[in-house]
Amino acid sequence: MIHHLAVVGATGAVGRELCALLGDRRLEVDRISLFASKRGAGTRITVGGKDVVVQELTDRCFTGVQYAIFSAGEDCSTQWAPVAAAAGAVVLDNSSAFRMDPDVPLVVPEVNPGDLAMHHGIVANPNCSTIIMNVPIWPMHRLNPIRRIVVSTYQAASGAGAAAMEELRTQTADYLAGREAAPRVFPYPIAFNLFSHDSPIDADGYNAEERKMIDETRKIFHEPSLSITATCIRVPVLRAHSESINLTFDRPVTSDEIREILMDAPGVEVVDDIEAGRFPMPVDASGCDNILVGRIRADASQPGNRGIELFVCGDQLRKGAALNAIQILELVTTP
Amino acid sequence: MIHHLAVVGATGAVGRELCALLGDRRLEVDRISLFASKRGAGTRITVGGKDVVVQELTDRCFTGVQYAIFSAGEDCSTQWAPVAAAAGAVVLDNSSAFRMDPDVPLVVPEVNPGDLAMHHGIVANPNCSTIIMNVPIWPMHRLNPIRRIVVSTYQAASGAGAAAMEELRTQTADYLAGREAAPRVFPYPIAFNLFSHDSPIDADGYNAEERKMIDETRKIFHEPSLSITATCIRVPVLRAHSESINLTFDRPVTSDEIREILMDAPGVEVVDDIEAGRFPMPVDASGCDNILVGRIRADASQPGNRGIELFVCGDQLRKGAALNAIQILELVTTP
Repeated sequence: MIHHLAVVGATGAVGRELCALLGDRRLEVDRISLFASKRGAGTRITVGGKDVVVQELTDRCFTGVQYAIFSAGEDCSTQWAPVAAAAGAVVLDNSSAFRMDPDVPLVVPEVNPGDLAMHHGIVANPNCSTIIMNVPIWPMHRLNPIRRIVVSTYQAASGAGAAAMEELRTQTADYLAGREAAPRVFPYPIAFNLFSHDSPIDADGYNAEERKMIDETRKIFHEPSLSITATCIRVPVLRAHSESINLTFDRPVTSDEIREILMDAPGVEVVDDIEAGRFPMPVDASGCDNILVGRIRADASQPGNRGIELFVCGDQLRKGAALNAIQILELVTTP
Repeated sequence: MIHHLAVVGATGAVGRELCALLGDRRLEVDRISLFASKRGAGTRITVGGKDVVVQELTDRCFTGVQYAIFSAGEDCSTQWAPVAAAAGAVVLDNSSAFRMDPDVPLVVPEVNPGDLAMHHGIVANPNCSTIIMNVPIWPMHRLNPIRRIVVSTYQAASGAGAAAMEELRTQTADYLAGREAAPRVFPYPIAFNLFSHDSPIDADGYNAEERKMIDETRKIFHEPSLSITATCIRVPVLRAHSESINLTFDRPVTSDEIREILMDAPGVEVVDDIEAGRFPMPVDASGCDNILVGRIRADASQPGNRGIELFVCGDQLRKGAALNAIQILELVTTP
């Protein structure tokens, strides 16, 4: 039983998914407070059958709050998560603000639930693309260490928030109607287009999203020198991310072994029907708790049968964000 | 001067691009005949300022034809290309029917123009994804042999023809209007969705499109055992393909060396502006002759500085099909 849970950023895409899931998962919560910026305050959101009015975030919001899920971006978390933690709340932070802090556990419940024990008031939820990749590959790594990962992403608009999803819809409608469709949320047109993830690029040429996939996977797997390269691309899909993943293992491996591991893996659904031509797709992954995995095959380019190719899809708002946070909440509130 | 050129499949997406380019490139052609199936016959298409009426393909079409560009799919080429060649025409075939035939040269003019010399009446135009990958990586391979390629594609609807492009438009409009949008051309919804390329899958788990990228690249590069793995994905983009390419070289290499090679490479335009956040995008590649290349960086996952990551976009209808065929035509008609 949680006596007081706060959701910060309740009116955003992830915040709304959190509110929907809080009703679905039947977590026992005595009192729920929803917070947003001044602009979002006053909005009514249904949580577990009850109408809750969103309040503006202020200094005194966290008095008596036991758990606070933050999903309002890095700046908000940097400013307010320490305030909430100091007021006695355990913070589950969905932003990147504290993920690489050595004092903050970064948790995918299917991978490293034990890391939760070392938290000091803040627990970080990983990047969506990281979670979607880690859930299916961790059970393989446990049995046969992964030596190298080459991943290319196909990321939905939802990763940039509710306004970005709306921009994809309206800009596409404008394009089809022959109207001018100037980008506002994204730097470039998203209608019938795709582009390199628009996060800042480091001196080494990787953008921040790619860097998150690399650094966060290493932290979650407790493998600080795991070889990973990533290319992150935004595509005109509404809410599920896809990833083309190429793996190199320590020891020889077959696609049948990998399929067996995935069949038993928590949080994974194998969708790999060659007869029917059915493989993971964003429309099928949307609204799904599981990560869909298919196109499982031996990598023809690697000597010694050490390579495997996979294609995965996961709901970015659900397992990539809200669901993972709620699973963490379920773990920390279980005695 | 070509005295009689035939285009077979003139009403298709590639056929129409061929007709447009034949006007643009100002090849000297005395007479142009356009052919299509019974359904397309009677259509008027403008070629080099002249209105040409499309005729139905029959037995006697190829009498006196000097060059015939085929772009009406594998079945049509299998049936009619030998007829055209027997009638004395040199066939440039855009289908996959003859590509792996050892007696048929498979040519990307920037890569292996010399192979044209060994033709026996039929020259094959490679698969679009193959061409778009081969143009930028060939000049690297010449200087520092590529040992392994890991590629993931983001393929536009145009690769499946004009009807597929129309399905992407109408299905997206239907989706936005809340109407049922049943797929007809593609097996699965393409509006705001993506899926594994819907070509047949072999016993080894690779689909036919991936197999083409692997086998054709080996043939074009004259490297029968080059290590390549590919994952081919259809995305809701209208007409330019994108590819995330990971390369392993024989000797150490820097991203600056690769950038210099690409700056001088024929058929390539480097679009890699980190300051402005400008990289290759399908909207910019559409209508472009060049393959756009960016996100050029050292692969952090490879030891000994042997890896490079790239992201490329190329117009699938143009350099991926029609332009490459016309460049071959220009080569074979140049004394």
